[in-house]
Amino acid sequence: MKIDGTPYRSVWVDEQDGWSVRILDQTKLPWKVDILRLTEVSAAAHAIRSMQVRGAPLIGAVAAYGLCLALRADASTAALERDVALLAATRPTAVNLHWALDRMLGVLRPAAPGARVALAYREAAAIADEDVAMCAAIGRHGVGLIAELARPGRRVNVLTHCNAGWLATVDWGTALAPIYLAHDQGIDLHVWVDETRPRNQGALLTAFELGSHGVPHTVIADNAGGHLMQHGQVDLVIVGTDRTTRTGDVANKIGTYLKALAAEDNGVPFWVAVPSSTIDWSVADGLREIPIEERAAAEVTTVTGRAMDGSIATIRVAPGASPAANPAFDVTPARLVTGLVTERGRCAATAAGLLGLFPERAGAAAAAAAGS
Amino acid sequence: MKIDGTPYRSVWVDEQDGWSVRILDQTKLPWKVDILRLTEVSAAAHAIRSMQVRGAPLIGAVAAYGLCLALRADASTAALERDVALLAATRPTAVNLHWALDRMLGVLRPAAPGARVALAYREAAAIADEDVAMCAAIGRHGVGLIAELARPGRRVNVLTHCNAGWLATVDWGTALAPIYLAHDQGIDLHVWVDETRPRNQGALLTAFELGSHGVPHTVIADNAGGHLMQHGQVDLVIVGTDRTTRTGDVANKIGTYLKALAAEDNGVPFWVAVPSSTIDWSVADGLREIPIEERAAAEVTTVTGRAMDGSIATIRVAPGASPAANPAFDVTPARLVTGLVTERGRCAATAAGLLGLFPERAGAAAAAAAGS
Repeated sequence: MKIDGTPYRSVWVDEQDGWSVRILDQTKLPWKVDILRLTEVSAAAHAIRSMQVRGAPLIGAVAAYGLCLALRADASTAALERDVALLAATRPTAVNLHWALDRMLGVLRPAAPGARVALAYREAAAIADEDVAMCAAIGRHGVGLIAELARPGRRVNVLTHCNAGWLATVDWGTALAPIYLAHDQGIDLHVWVDETRPRNQGALLTAFELGSHGVPHTVIADNAGGHLMQHGQVDLVIVGTDRTTRTGDVANKIGTYLKALAAEDNGVPFWVAVPSSTIDWSVADGLREIPIEERAAAEVTTVTGRAMDGSIATIRVAPGASPAANPAFDVTPARLVTGLVTERGRCAATAAGLLGLFPERAGAAAAAAAGS
Repeated sequence: MKIDGTPYRSVWVDEQDGWSVRILDQTKLPWKVDILRLTEVSAAAHAIRSMQVRGAPLIGAVAAYGLCLALRADASTAALERDVALLAATRPTAVNLHWALDRMLGVLRPAAPGARVALAYREAAAIADEDVAMCAAIGRHGVGLIAELARPGRRVNVLTHCNAGWLATVDWGTALAPIYLAHDQGIDLHVWVDETRPRNQGALLTAFELGSHGVPHTVIADNAGGHLMQHGQVDLVIVGTDRTTRTGDVANKIGTYLKALAAEDNGVPFWVAVPSSTIDWSVADGLREIPIEERAAAEVTTVTGRAMDGSIATIRVAPGASPAANPAFDVTPARLVTGLVTERGRCAATAAGLLGLFPERAGAAAAAAAGS
């Protein structure tokens, strides 16, 4: 997608040297478009851990490229296993990270050390390209949800939480892909953008993305969505997911569950954009089985933004003596989810719904069910 | 309640001179405990207008004391009417302000000018003392909600939203009164404090209040409460109310409704502390009949806190091109409210429940019902 008319992906290989990895430092957005050059696996791990890159699909792609950088330094099997472990430990909740690293391992383990670097770059590029194709497909399968709500002279109001846009993927986004497509097709729509405390990915990244693409939107406090739904001002909720169980439970950014409850209470359709890479076929009960990352208290007790002099500043917003808790995700039970939009089409948030679109996973799902 | 071991009210008459009015400058909290000395009515009006004092009950008490200061300068009937108008214009939407000034006028208009100053101080003190008594009664009637959840060796976890504490009243608070009483009685409790964007009254004022009084608490993003309830970490929710319908619908700070939905979904009791002054006996349908104030977009797009150099700073937290919406309250339907704690006791969030405690309002309620 474009920033100031220039098309970008959220991760790419440097065009000049052909091997270093470029990312947008998302901790600087929307105030500054800062392109970082990663040359070592430790920098890639840091980028994921510090959330210079975030969003489940993008994390997977950056981890894959991080492994390329690792292999340039040491392509031995021992180093491969060590660096995969390093990258896998950066974020606990997103399943794509492990999915991407497992995929890389599947290609790299059998290969001779001397062949691994080239193979790694090829596989990382495939992961990135497939992510773009997957998001585009989610857009095509999801755009009808918006189109069927459109009436002449009446704007469709969509609410989204956090950032499941192109900055969270390699391009297009998941939850935002149908929105971009609908907007491009001329459907009159408007997006309510949840601020998404504590890291404000909605106000900072989603608002930036939508604004850059020209999509009408309004930033709201996370507290406001229920009120808007009570008053008929939300026609549809679309969010992303960091991990989806085989039964359709959805682990997504903290606060998603509250919006799902409000959607149900007000008869508003609640859809989740689900790249199949986020589906964890081994898990049936999201609430009991998905680990929820507890992040630093400082994310709650401070806020970062642009000071009046233009600098990026961090200010305290709670007393120094007060502790804070910071669970980063919550689980929305499948019963609250109207449906899922995957790259293969839409389905119910049920095991049957998902297996209808991914029949090749029936064996894995059955084995996990038997074991659990 | 206490700050560093010293008991305070949020407004009081100076002990040394016996006439000037002391307030805590709440725009400086929690960063600085700045006690202001008001000696003129203009300073009292400024304190209300600039939100050095806020919270409907406290505003009423400060206006009453402001009128005392006015009468010291000029106790004529013309000055009385003029200064009441000055104070009434500070926050034209706050209903307690007009209630308190009307009460003062009722006492002062018939009195001889020479008697007015003493009468004014007596009536202002009565307004303040009655507010304290009302809050203390809510505390006594509510403390059992916490006490009955206490088990040996197990801490009771209470979640609250916004600030319904002693800083919003003259002392004790409404939602926090049962919490202070339970803590003072030695019950092991802990409070989850919703940050309460966009103005952060939870993280700034409630956390400060609780910390100053020694009540264990943890600040959380508004998004986190549902997750905590899903995992059994919330035993009870207590919030305040800005307006309560005669049927038990509750208009309170934006986001309250989302916590009520999560409480219902997880079987967590959801109680509202209701001073009877907040009951609007003329209204039956909170969602349709209570107007919701839309406040400035800048409250959403900016955050104020303490910069690392110790100064108070305001930073932008959304792109400059993105508009924001800022509804300040939402309505929690009575069906989601476990019960109400009033100064006369607890009751169901129903017309019958409220009339059981306030039978003298049966006529007003019936007349309003007939008219609606």
